[in-house]
Amino acid sequence: MRNEIKIFSPATVANVSCGFDVLGFCLDNIGDEMIIKKTPQKGIRITKIEGYDLPLNPLENVAGVSALALLEEAKPNFGFEIEIYKKIKPGSGIGSSSASASGSVFAINELLGKPYNTHQLTAFAMKGEALASGAEHADNIAPALFGGFTLVKSCNPISILKLPTPAALYATIIHPEIEIKTRHARSILPDQIPLKTAITQWANVGSLVHALHTNNYQLLSSALQDVVIEPYRKTLIPHFDTVKKQTLRIGALGCGISGSGPSVFALSEGLEMAKNVEKVMRDIYFRAGITFTTYVSKINPTGIKIL
Amino acid sequence: MRNEIKIFSPATVANVSCGFDVLGFCLDNIGDEMIIKKTPQKGIRITKIEGYDLPLNPLENVAGVSALALLEEAKPNFGFEIEIYKKIKPGSGIGSSSASASGSVFAINELLGKPYNTHQLTAFAMKGEALASGAEHADNIAPALFGGFTLVKSCNPISILKLPTPAALYATIIHPEIEIKTRHARSILPDQIPLKTAITQWANVGSLVHALHTNNYQLLSSALQDVVIEPYRKTLIPHFDTVKKQTLRIGALGCGISGSGPSVFALSEGLEMAKNVEKVMRDIYFRAGITFTTYVSKINPTGIKIL
Repeated sequence: MRNEIKIFSPATVANVSCGFDVLGFCLDNIGDEMIIKKTPQKGIRITKIEGYDLPLNPLENVAGVSALALLEEAKPNFGFEIEIYKKIKPGSGIGSSSASASGSVFAINELLGKPYNTHQLTAFAMKGEALASGAEHADNIAPALFGGFTLVKSCNPISILKLPTPAALYATIIHPEIEIKTRHARSILPDQIPLKTAITQWANVGSLVHALHTNNYQLLSSALQDVVIEPYRKTLIPHFDTVKKQTLRIGALGCGISGSGPSVFALSEGLEMAKNVEKVMRDIYFRAGITFTTYVSKINPTGIKIL
Repeated sequence: MRNEIKIFSPATVANVSCGFDVLGFCLDNIGDEMIIKKTPQKGIRITKIEGYDLPLNPLENVAGVSALALLEEAKPNFGFEIEIYKKIKPGSGIGSSSASASGSVFAINELLGKPYNTHQLTAFAMKGEALASGAEHADNIAPALFGGFTLVKSCNPISILKLPTPAALYATIIHPEIEIKTRHARSILPDQIPLKTAITQWANVGSLVHALHTNNYQLLSSALQDVVIEPYRKTLIPHFDTVKKQTLRIGALGCGISGSGPSVFALSEGLEMAKNVEKVMRDIYFRAGITFTTYVSKINPTGIKIL
């Protein structure tokens, strides 16, 4: 067994319009890098964080908390040092905390000889995620660990379904530089929703799963609707309606809020359309004078990678 | 083109636990027979109804209303006579009105040389269904016309998805002889539901669609949960909890209310299990002194059949 591992832990898009709290997909060329080393000293030490200012104390860092959850089960008579090269901005809405939480447990599991399966790693990573979002969610963790499109059937017990990924599907992401706290984005949601809109939502979730299985881009497009959450959360994202309208007009399959925002995602058939969508998104925020970052990515079918 | 046709119009199970208002499946050996003949006289006449006492006036009969909706579009310079040999008891919760509404438009479309596709036939049949339930629903019509498992993505515009049917899947139905009006069963439902339970429901709908695509009976079983509607409607069905508990205990994949009840359905892997489930159901209602009818059926993959 090796004593050191370097991994790429990808950004992810949760919710995916109709699938609030259950659906997610994994990005391919946006993500953190992490180096994890075995140490004779027990426990977890985070020795380096580059990119963003995050706590080195493992109890205050999602990568540390999830790693400690794993060590509490595994009880090895050695420990681990973690270096994090953070490229996903915390709070951007594309699974920054989940990348850290998933990456550390994935890497440690490799260094231990893979005693845990991906469902078990999800459970450890959720402990870390809870530090960031205030609740144990798996909708960003599942796509990071499983890759592709995922459906969190249940968190208790943990049951994750890996869905098929149509080959020509590309994501475009725009991250406007405004801050939305996950806790706040949750607090503005209603406790109760109309049964009628709930029915529309579960018809769309079922249709989206069917569309992924049948490579039906047109059906995928018509299923990428969010009648429950988006009406509330879009108010937190400047120019959301314009971005959605313009990207759909030029041919995006769907456009919605990534996780709890502020990032906005679109899905397109083919790289060229995804790049056209990127241009449209950039123009809108450029004209509005809002600083932003964009990404165009294939759907990552496998999740975290060993480098 | 022929001048007369005889068809078998099957019973159907709507909702299928998690899929209130959207999911349904088609039964194989329970259904009405209908004979439809071209006549020189324009319009629709229902000349015979055997089995149950239903109105012969086409404006008061679901088969007549749906047929008239089709004729209004097609405008043929002749008409049709309908004979209905009703075997599905009205109000039993296994799509009695949908079988009549779907059967008449299916048969007339055949006699006209198939000018309409199945989506268009769904629209005509929904006009008939509205007479029975007070609202235009397609969750029983879709499985009757398309066969197998169906998902009503949307009623306006009409979009029906035909889902795959695992080969070893069998349904058991028990119809206790009590009356539940669809309108009443709708009226006891809440207008608003907790977001949390809605999320569980759409996770289950997505999981059920994935299970059908992957022939995963275990996943199908765990997705066959209804946390939204069943808690309300089960109060209308005597001994529902006992039937559910006992059928699941012996190995049914799932058990729930068929449509708006009072029929209860169970799904099983294999005919033998479906028959064991039937025995358990019968014993419970027999001991309770409630008159009942039971059916065991393969899932009908094609829907209405020409005899």
